[in-house]
Formats: sequence, structure tokens, C-alpha cells
Amino acid sequence: MLANHFQNGIETARLVWSRIPNSEESQLLDDAVGILKNNDGGGVESLDYEVVENFAYREEQAQRGKLYVSYLLVVKWFFALLIGICTGLAAVFINIAVENFAGWKFSVTFDIIQKSYIAGFVVYVLINLVLVYSSVYIITQFAPAAAGSGIPEIKGYLNGVDIHGILLFRTLIGKIFGSIGSVGGGLALGKEGPLVHTGACIASLLGQGGSTKYHLNSRWFQVFKSDRDRRDLVTCGCAAGVAAAFRAPVGGVLFALEEVTSWWRSQLMWRVFFTSAVVAVVVRAAMGWCKSGKCGHFGSGGFIIWDISDGQEDYSFAELLPMAIIGVIGGLLGSSMPCIHFNISHFIWPAFFCSKDKEYNDLATIFFNTQDDAIRNLFSAKTINEYSSQSLLTFLVMFYALAVITFGTAVPAGQFVPGIMIGSTYGRLVGMFVVKYYRKLNIEEGTYALLGAASFLGGSMRMTVSLCVIMVEISNNLKFLPLIMLVLLISKAVGDAFNEGIYEEQAQLRGIPLLESRPKYEMRNMTAKEACGSGRVVCFPRVVKVSDVVSILRSNKHNGFPVIDHTRSGEPLVIGLVLRSHLLVILQSKVDFQHSPLPSDPRGGGRSIRHDSGEFAKPVSSKGICIDDIHLSSDDLEMYIDLAPFLNPSPYIVPEDMSLTKVYNLFRQLGLRHLFVVPRPSRVLGLITRKDLLIEEKENVNTLELQSTSVRIQHQYKRLTRNIDVERPLLIGLLQNQTPD
Amino acid sequence: MLANHFQNGIETARLVWSRIPNSEESQLLDDAVGILKNNDGGGVESLDYEVVENFAYREEQAQRGKLYVSYLLVVKWFFALLIGICTGLAAVFINIAVENFAGWKFSVTFDIIQKSYIAGFVVYVLINLVLVYSSVYIITQFAPAAAGSGIPEIKGYLNGVDIHGILLFRTLIGKIFGSIGSVGGGLALGKEGPLVHTGACIASLLGQGGSTKYHLNSRWFQVFKSDRDRRDLVTCGCAAGVAAAFRAPVGGVLFALEEVTSWWRSQLMWRVFFTSAVVAVVVRAAMGWCKSGKCGHFGSGGFIIWDISDGQEDYSFAELLPMAIIGVIGGLLGSSMPCIHFNISHFIWPAFFCSKDKEYNDLATIFFNTQDDAIRNLFSAKTINEYSSQSLLTFLVMFYALAVITFGTAVPAGQFVPGIMIGSTYGRLVGMFVVKYYRKLNIEEGTYALLGAASFLGGSMRMTVSLCVIMVEISNNLKFLPLIMLVLLISKAVGDAFNEGIYEEQAQLRGIPLLESRPKYEMRNMTAKEACGSGRVVCFPRVVKVSDVVSILRSNKHNGFPVIDHTRSGEPLVIGLVLRSHLLVILQSKVDFQHSPLPSDPRGGGRSIRHDSGEFAKPVSSKGICIDDIHLSSDDLEMYIDLAPFLNPSPYIVPEDMSLTKVYNLFRQLGLRHLFVVPRPSRVLGLITRKDLLIEEKENVNTLELQSTSVRIQHQYKRLTRNIDVERPLLIGLLQNQTPD
Repeated sequence: MLANHFQNGIETARLVWSRIPNSEESQLLDDAVGILKNNDGGGVESLDYEVVENFAYREEQAQRGKLYVSYLLVVKWFFALLIGICTGLAAVFINIAVENFAGWKFSVTFDIIQKSYIAGFVVYVLINLVLVYSSVYIITQFAPAAAGSGIPEIKGYLNGVDIHGILLFRTLIGKIFGSIGSVGGGLALGKEGPLVHTGACIASLLGQGGSTKYHLNSRWFQVFKSDRDRRDLVTCGCAAGVAAAFRAPVGGVLFALEEVTSWWRSQLMWRVFFTSAVVAVVVRAAMGWCKSGKCGHFGSGGFIIWDISDGQEDYSFAELLPMAIIGVIGGLLGSSMPCIHFNISHFIWPAFFCSKDKEYNDLATIFFNTQDDAIRNLFSAKTINEYSSQSLLTFLVMFYALAVITFGTAVPAGQFVPGIMIGSTYGRLVGMFVVKYYRKLNIEEGTYALLGAASFLGGSMRMTVSLCVIMVEISNNLKFLPLIMLVLLISKAVGDAFNEGIYEEQAQLRGIPLLESRPKYEMRNMTAKEACGSGRVVCFPRVVKVSDVVSILRSNKHNGFPVIDHTRSGEPLVIGLVLRSHLLVILQSKVDFQHSPLPSDPRGGGRSIRHDSGEFAKPVSSKGICIDDIHLSSDDLEMYIDLAPFLNPSPYIVPEDMSLTKVYNLFRQLGLRHLFVVPRPSRVLGLITRKDLLIEEKENVNTLELQSTSVRIQHQYKRLTRNIDVERPLLIGLLQNQTPD
Repeated sequence: MLANHFQNGIETARLVWSRIPNSEESQLLDDAVGILKNNDGGGVESLDYEVVENFAYREEQAQRGKLYVSYLLVVKWFFALLIGICTGLAAVFINIAVENFAGWKFSVTFDIIQKSYIAGFVVYVLINLVLVYSSVYIITQFAPAAAGSGIPEIKGYLNGVDIHGILLFRTLIGKIFGSIGSVGGGLALGKEGPLVHTGACIASLLGQGGSTKYHLNSRWFQVFKSDRDRRDLVTCGCAAGVAAAFRAPVGGVLFALEEVTSWWRSQLMWRVFFTSAVVAVVVRAAMGWCKSGKCGHFGSGGFIIWDISDGQEDYSFAELLPMAIIGVIGGLLGSSMPCIHFNISHFIWPAFFCSKDKEYNDLATIFFNTQDDAIRNLFSAKTINEYSSQSLLTFLVMFYALAVITFGTAVPAGQFVPGIMIGSTYGRLVGMFVVKYYRKLNIEEGTYALLGAASFLGGSMRMTVSLCVIMVEISNNLKFLPLIMLVLLISKAVGDAFNEGIYEEQAQLRGIPLLESRPKYEMRNMTAKEACGSGRVVCFPRVVKVSDVVSILRSNKHNGFPVIDHTRSGEPLVIGLVLRSHLLVILQSKVDFQHSPLPSDPRGGGRSIRHDSGEFAKPVSSKGICIDDIHLSSDDLEMYIDLAPFLNPSPYIVPEDMSLTKVYNLFRQLGLRHLFVVPRPSRVLGLITRKDLLIEEKENVNTLELQSTSVRIQHQYKRLTRNIDVERPLLIGLLQNQTPD
């Protein structure tokens, strides 16, 4: 029976992999992979975490004022609540479905096997094949972006890389049903990574007010227009996913903080924490409801809680050595998994079938259980000598091989549960040695299994604090905290000696260009000017002919263009940055076209009222408008656009000979998308120090909100002209001069 | 007896407070407070978390190369280990001392009380007075910066404010012995805040290679010269302090992350985690050693571990309401503590003595224990109806009043244990109500005490995730995690409605100008130019007369000055920023004085070899050199200095009309000290986007390290001249032109 199951695992894995070279679906799968691997900037787009302070934005801000900020805050908390509830429910749904499939599968097989062994085997394999095939079908046909664990993609998104399709509604659906199929079908993978992706999708969809394509959107929800706010929501979603997968709320917060996000603010921590707490409550309530038997085969085991709180009471210093060894093994095995996968996946198949005729009864208890139950058995205390070392070793080799093969496959696949399986197996092996060797101590093999699991995850994922908290939360035992810390330290250090963490490796394989938090060593010897190369910068004048805009947008793939104007005395002056996406919106709507090649009057009003900033917001995870989709008549092409209202008037700038290390820090820490390299300044108008930024809150801000629109515009205009006494003319000095009034 | 103890507490508090208006020491105390309250920029100095890339720095970098980076990494880990060991030992020492004082105090009192009640009372009060007085004496006479909890000051340091004296060796000693005196003397305060400060001091002292003043320094240790590296070490120290105080390693990491630091990198998390793990191991080892009775009265109770793992098994949804009420109470009481303290401290005394003639037996069990034991009693399960509600209420009122009075006193004082005392008292009160009302449920009052403690701390400190983890770690019970989260959410929300957290309030009272992570709302309507005011910027020319330097430094208190030079065509050009502290070093050493008013030849070498960057490193927490300490002859004053090698050649710049929100983000996120406001640029030389910053590691870097000094300088020179084809001359074009070669 074991052999059957094992065979079945191999078969399903083969099924998944054999598609790539020769079957009909291979093209589709290639497409799916192709999108992810596209590194040339076409498929991968950067996000703008800087707030684009163009006129529309400023007007909206002035109009809405401080009350709006409070409103936004309330909405953000409400969204955190919604994300928590939805992710919790999604997790419960996946778990109930998987448990029910598994339960139904086993009961059917058991019924048939009593009549005919062969028929039972065939039915069992068929059911698994159908489940896995359905998962593969969903992914390849319907939601290619839902393949894999999704964590590298989400990590990329939070790092500022928008990969097409990862946060769509169809991806969410594909992820949920795909992971039910693949986990229910018994593949060597878990549902935790997919849950993180699920949480992120839910958060993103809520943030953009539902799916536009499927008409499931509501204008009421469309509050968050900037990439920055959406990023915060997605961070909440990630934490919610982990919290739901492991029922580890603190672990979820830390996972989001340590592993997934690239930017973090302490206000965000507070909201992420709330989301996780909501998930914990939802999952708890759902499990309480299921206890009454309303959820079919779903029992308490659906969630990964391996309570070993009644385990080993104490540990001696003599045990630290074997524990350190576990750490080393974890680092080695964990870090080698991706390498082995890609080096030997071509010729592993022939060598693999030789082991299929071995059969062990205790091995069957590992293989034939669902993975969650198997782990609970491995962690269990008071069960010394339950497993023979040979069977554990065999299982380790087999499962490691299976995990290596399934790794990076085309179905939604989590690395957590396989990691825990492998780790706890060799941990228990070491534990058995320790029991034999240090005879007199009160040693539980289950403790070593737990440490082994921690070490393997540490060696593959390189998380520290979050993994530590997750392990404590799922094992429900605080006593081993220092031991888990020790093992994690060692396994991470060993793993770091070889390669980067599994998510970074996967991100690299999929062509997701992550910006690390630390600049590269070489950057010390480079300047900003060297980094941006010698290519000519494509600039726009302030008032530009529509035909010129079209030809410039067609001629290159740049996403941002400096806008240059001239002062009264004819000197050039950089007045801001205009984004390709905004230009495309302007070209499509045509309302801003004008006949005159002169700047429009900024005091005339009505200018930016034609747009609200929502129109400029790009839907998450979509390609947005393309220049070729816009149809302009020859009359349109002869008209002009005044770009001034659509500019980001003051993008961040760096002098040309600033070292690239500093440029990198600026770019990375502020989450920028474009940075202007400018000549060294000729004068310093002022120095800003800490004391200049310590401004007391003023009381009279709310009055601003009560002013009428015309007064507001006047006010804004006044604000801009306040600097008129500065010798060099500014943007508005310019405007004043050139407007024909 | 209760009244005595209580009276004693008031007496000691009076002792501390009565000093301020009339006793002889008041002047000293005022000095101590004065230093902290000095907000005019004299006492409070900013730190520079930006790496100052002057010539000396660059040469050192080039010289040491990549191997040096690896060496630094190893040293950083070694320091993390040292910090962990030292902080762990300091915590063990404080605990052993406090426990022994307390034990000895009680045994002496008990011996005498059997002969004479009056004599016993007198002796007990005297011992406490001596202990508290010694603490006050240490603080006022020896280490004024060791007053209070120290957390606001450390928070300020990590936010970039260097308060004189907070990280000195004498502060460390004062903190350790002061907190032994005040905690041993029975004041309503804890030793956790002081332990955080202790950890930070240890880290800082190790980082700068010991104390220069007490000749306890070693050159070998002087590796970390930048404020940035020292900041990282101090962060490790904070986490170590919390980890040692609560034996909560994960809580320590989170505390440092959430409450103390302003900047955080994920590499740092890993190192901070290691430090905490080391502390946990050291404390565990020391406690194991003490179990054999070698530490006198020190038992297992010295550390705050209130194990209630055998408490309430489950909870019902009906209990959520009383728990939410606990959260609200916590938010109200916690947030009102600082306000009440400063509003009523003048007239609270007369009203307070009326309660001294009340005496309760169960009240005595709370008062007469050490606080740790009292908390353990309050948290204890299976002890329903142990306390009467009247006695708990009386204790709550008294202890809250005491804590309000002792709050912000002149001895090292932690707010954790008093907070837990107050919170667990009202928590237990609510629990008693619940037990009475929901009769049928299996409810433990101890659970409510725990939740009460969490709520009060949440309401006063506003930490969420870290507090949650700390509470779980000290109570050793994971089951209540969702409940603690709920209570914390409510109490923090309630508290936030009234004021900021206790540490922020304290920081404000002490005049520590913290830069919050979020810009103020008003900044949206301000520009960079407006923020830096209309004052003239004091600039230096490239080659400056010594007498001019002296007179400029004397005429203002600025810490940084732009340096302006002229191009071949006579146009001015900003070539960098020079720091006051660097100018003072140059003036003091005199080796860079030259007779010629022309720039020295950068290719001559030897220029920056006269200094290494260590000379420019300011000792932590000291005032550094003052211009009045430097004596220059009239010949010296006639000489010149070429500032070029000492510049930070490319400080960050912002255009004058950038909105202050964006300027604030730049300044705060990068931890800057100076920022140049410059005119809008006239040209864009290039755009930097994500793809420009994705540079692959090159293999041929190590060759650089092997080159000789002359080649290196040549190389560096070449690097700088590479941009010569740029139309506008850069710094080096300038150098070339003006050097007489």
C-alpha cells in the first residue's frame, strides 16, 4: 500500500512535469512561465510608492482636508477588518475542502479495497490524479499567475515590482481551488504559501474596489488610489494569510515584517496586528462551529497545530551538541533544495524507481496519513522507538526527493509543510541517536523532530524571529524557545554560506528584480551619472503637441519624462516629471487638448476639475492603457496639451557625482520609481536640520476646508506665488509670465 | 504593618520629591533635569546617520576593500555576543543584589520585630530610607543622566538626538547601583526600564571601545566610528535589556523594533535576535548556577516569570465583554497617569494621609511581598475569593497614587512592574465580578489579572505586538494570546484618543525632539524653502583663512556649512558640506594648515593620510571639542585650510519648492542631519530607475585591494575625472584648474 501511495505521488508529479515538454497544454504553461520570466521591463513594471503631488492630487487634498484624513484612517481600519474576515473564511474553506476530499478519498478506497485490492488501488490513484489534474487544469487554463507558492511574487510586489496578473480576481479563484486540488491530491506540498497569496489577492481586490473585469466592483470601495496605500493593504493580507495558515497571529505579523515587506512603518504594524487578530478570531469561531459536525470530515486537524505542550520537560547542556548538528543539517538540506532541483531534475527519473519495491509498516503510518497527521505523529512525545531508523531514513530520502521535484511546480505549492515533514524526520533520527547515546536523560524524540523542522525551514527560508514565533505558536510550547533560536541561528548561518533564501532564489528564477535593502559593494565606486548611462534623456516641453506626445511614447518604453520650460530670460528650468500612464490617460480622454500652443491660465479654474486623481490610478496587476489602443484623429494630433497640471512638480533629485550607494539608499528607502540626476547646484538657499522639521500642530487648519473652491484655488495660487521674491523664477513665476492675461 | 510599609513608601517618595524645592541637593537635581530639559540645541545634539563620504572615508574604504567588510561583519557579530553576555550578567547582578537586599531587610526586621514592634518598624523604615537615599545620592551626585527609566532618552538617541551623558560609563554604573537601591528600597517602580538603559550603555561603551575618561578603553575595540554603526549596537543593547528583564528573548527583539528604534533593517533584526538569544542563555545558566544556593536569598523569583500555564483552560464568548471593559479601563488609567502626575502632584499630599489608618490582612499580602511575588499571587489560578474586593480596590487606589507620584522621579525607575501591579489588581477586580455574575463558567480570576496587566501596559506604553509577546512569554501561556491581543487593541485605541504613549510624553517633557515617522499634516502646504526660514546661509569658500573659520564658528551654533567654490568661468558651485566637529578637529590638530591660499594638489598624496576617519569620530554622548578650548597663535590664524578633503562631497539636496512632506520623508527615512535646499535645476542629466540599480556583483573587485597606495590614489583620481566630459565642470575639474601644477 505504501508503494502504491508513493508511486501515486511520483505519477502525479510526473503528470505535472511531463506537460512541459510535449503535451498540448505545454504552450499554455510556457505562456504562464513566460509572463513571470519576462525580465525586459515589458511584463515587469515598477510601482510608484512616492505620492505624486500633481495639481489634481493637491486640489483633492486641499478640498478634503483634515477630516478626510480621519475618514481615510477609519476606512483603512475597516479594510483591515474585512481582509481579516475574508482571509480567515478563505482559509477555513480551503481546509474544509481539503479535509473532506481526503476523508472521502480514503473512505471510498477503503470500501473498495475490502472487495478488491487492485480496484482500490486504481480508484485511489484515479481520484488523486483527478484532483491534481483539476488543479493543473485550473492553473494552466484559467489562472497561470496562481502557480507556485506566490510568496516570491508578493515579495516582489511589495518591493515595487508589479508582475502582471498576480493580484487579479481570477488568480485568487485559481489559487483557492488549485491548492485544494493539489493538496487534496496528496502532492508533497502545503497550503500555506498559497494562503499568503490568497490573503494578498483579497487585500488588493478590496483595495481597488473589486474586480473591474468581472463587474464585481463598487465605487464605494475605491478609496485607495496610490500604490502606497495598496501596498499597505497587501501587507495586511500577507500577515492574514500566515495567521490563517498556522493559526499564529503574532507569527503572521512577523512573517509579513521580516520576510515579505520591503518597507515598514510602525503604524502599519499596528494595523497588520489587528488583521491577524481578526483572522485568529474568525478561524476560532469557524472551528467552534465545525465541532458540531457540520463540516463533514473536517476535524480539529485541519489547521496546523501540533500541540506538544506535554513534551519534554527540560533539557541539559549536553543536548546542545546534537541540536547544533540538527541546525547544520537543516542549513545544508534547506539551502541545497533549490540547487538540487535545477541541477538534477533532468536525470533523476530513471534512478528513482528502484526504491518502489521496499515496504515498511511504520513507513506506511507516515505516508498514508495526511501530512498534518504525519507531522503530529513525528512530533509526538512518549513514543520512543515508535519508528525504526531505517524507515525514517527511507522516508527522508523519498520525501526529500519528492519535495525537490515538486518544488517550483505549476500547481499552487507551499514549502512549509514539506519542510516541516523533512525536518522533523531527520530531527527525529538525530533524536533517536541521542536517546541511544545519552541513555540516562529524559529525552523525547518529539523535541528533536520539532527542532529539525525549525532547522530545515530556517535553512530554506532564512527567517528568524517570525519562524521562531510560528514554531512556538504551532507547537504550543514555549519551553523550547531558546533551543529553537539556537537551531535557527545555526541553520540560517549555514544556509547563508551557500545561497540566498528560497524566496529570493525563486524570485530570481522568475525574473522578479528585487531591490535588496543594502546597496551592492561596487556602488561605492560609481556615481549617479554613471548608473543612468549615456543615453539622451527624453524631455517634454511644458506645452506639447499631441502628435509629438504620441511619437515620443511610441519611440521608447520609458515610464517617466522630465518636463522642461524656459524662464523669462530664456534659461531652461526643470518643472517636473510626467508619467507615461498619465499621458496615456490624457490622450485617451482628450478633454485637455487645446488649440493654443501657449500655457493655459492656472487661475481660470476648471483645469484639473476635469480629472480626479482616481482616473490616473492604475488598476493593480494589470497592464493599463497601451499607446496603440488610443485612436486620435488628425485634428486631435494637431492640438496641444499643457502638461503643468499633470506634473509631479518636485521629484527627488540627486547631483550627478553623488556616489551610487547614497543614491541607492534614497531610491530604496523611499520606494521611488524615478529619480532625476541633475548638475551640481550653484547655490544653497537654505539648510534643513532637525529643528526645522519640528513643527507644532496648528489649530486653524480646519478653516481651510470650509473655504469655497474659488477661494481655495486662489489660496493655492497664492501659496505658489509666495516665492516670487526668490531671484530665480520658479514654476509659477513662469506660469505668470507666459499666460496671455 | 501594612500601614507602615505604605507609609514608608510615601516617605521615600516624599524624600525623593522634597529635595526639589528646598534641600541642598536640589541644585544638583535641577542640574540633572536641566540638562535633559535643555531644548535650545545646546544640550541636545543631532546625530548623523548618513555616512559622511569625505576623502578620508573613501580612502579607508578603498584601502580596506571587501575583506574589511567581511571583517566588520564578524566584529559586529562578536559585539552582539559581548553585548548579550554583559547585559545578561548585569541583569543577573541587579537581580541578585535586589533579592539579597530584600531578603536581608526582611530577616533583620523579622528578628527585631519579635523583640519590639516599634524598633522593628524603625529599622525597616531606616533600611529602606538608606537604600532609597543611596540611590538618590548616586543619581544626583554621580550620574544625573541615569534618572528615570532611560527609555525615552534611548528612544531619542536612536531617533538621532544625542543627549549629553546618557551613554557614559558613569551613567551605566549609576543606573545599575541606583536601580538596586530604589527597587531594593521598595519604591513603586521596576527594574526593566533601567535594564534597557543598562543594555544600551553597555552596547555603546563596547562600540566606542570603552570609556576614555576612566582609561578603560582599548584601541582594538574602536572599530565603529559612525553614528550609524553605534546606533545598531545600541539597538542590540535595548533588546538585550528587555530580554534580560523579562527573560523574553522574542519580546526583546520586538520591543526594540516597535518601541525604541526609528530605523530598522532586516539584517539588524537577525543580529538583535542573536543578542537576545545570548542573553536568554546567560540568564538561564546563571539561574541554574544559583539554584545550588550560591546566590544568597536569590531564588527563582528574581526574574519576572509568572507562570500561569496551569490556569484557565478555555474561555467563552460571553467573557469577551468584561475583557473589553478591562481594555477600556487600561486605556483610561494608563493614558491618564502622566497627566494626573503633572496636574495634581502639588496638592495630592494632604489628601493622601487619610487612608493610613486602614488595615487589611489580605492587603498586607499584596503590600508586604516584593512586587514580583505580589504579581504572582494576583495572577494565581485556583484562588477564587482569596482577596476581598474592598482590599483590592484600596490597593489599586493606593498603588496607582504611589505610581503616579513616583512616576518620573529622580531614581532609576521602570514603569513595567508598577503597571503590571495596577493592571492585575483591577483585572482581578473585574474577574471577581465575572465569577459572581457568570456563575456556571469555569473562570479563573488570575486570567483577568493577566489581561488587566496587559491592558494597563497597552494603555500607557501603546506597544502592541511586542507587549503581546512579552505577556505571553512571562505568563508562559499561549492560550490567552487572542484575548491579550483583543485587550491590547482596545486599550491602545482608548489611550490613543487622549494622548501619546508614556515614552513619547516623557520624551516631550524632557525636551527630546523626536522626529515622528509620519510628517505633520501642515507640511503639505509648506515648501522646503519656507521650512528653513529666511536666514542667510553661512558658507565657506574652498580654501579658507584660519581666522575666518574661528570667527564663523564663534558667531553661530550651526553644525554644518556648505562649501562653495567657483568654476573656471567664475560661476559658483556647491562642492559639499563641512561639519563643525570636523573643522574643530582640523583646527585642533593644525597639521592641515598651509601658507598658500591656493588649493593643495590632490595628487600629491599625504593629504588625508594625516588623518584617519577615527579622529573625526565623536565620542558617544559627550560634547566633543568646543571652539573655546582651541588655542591658536596669531601665526596660525594667518594660515589657510583647504577644506576639499574634509567635505562630504554630495549631501542630499532638495529643490526649494518641494513640499515639506516629501522633504520630511527624505530626512526622516534616511536619518539625515543636514539637507541642502537648492534652486530648481535647469537640466536633467539622467533618470535613475529600478533597472539602473540592479547591478550584478563583479568578480574583479578584490584586485583593487592589492594595489599600492599611489596606484590607489591615481585610481581614485581617475574615477573623479571620468566625468570631465560633462559640460559643467565638477568638483575635480575645479581642483585641476586651480592647483598650481
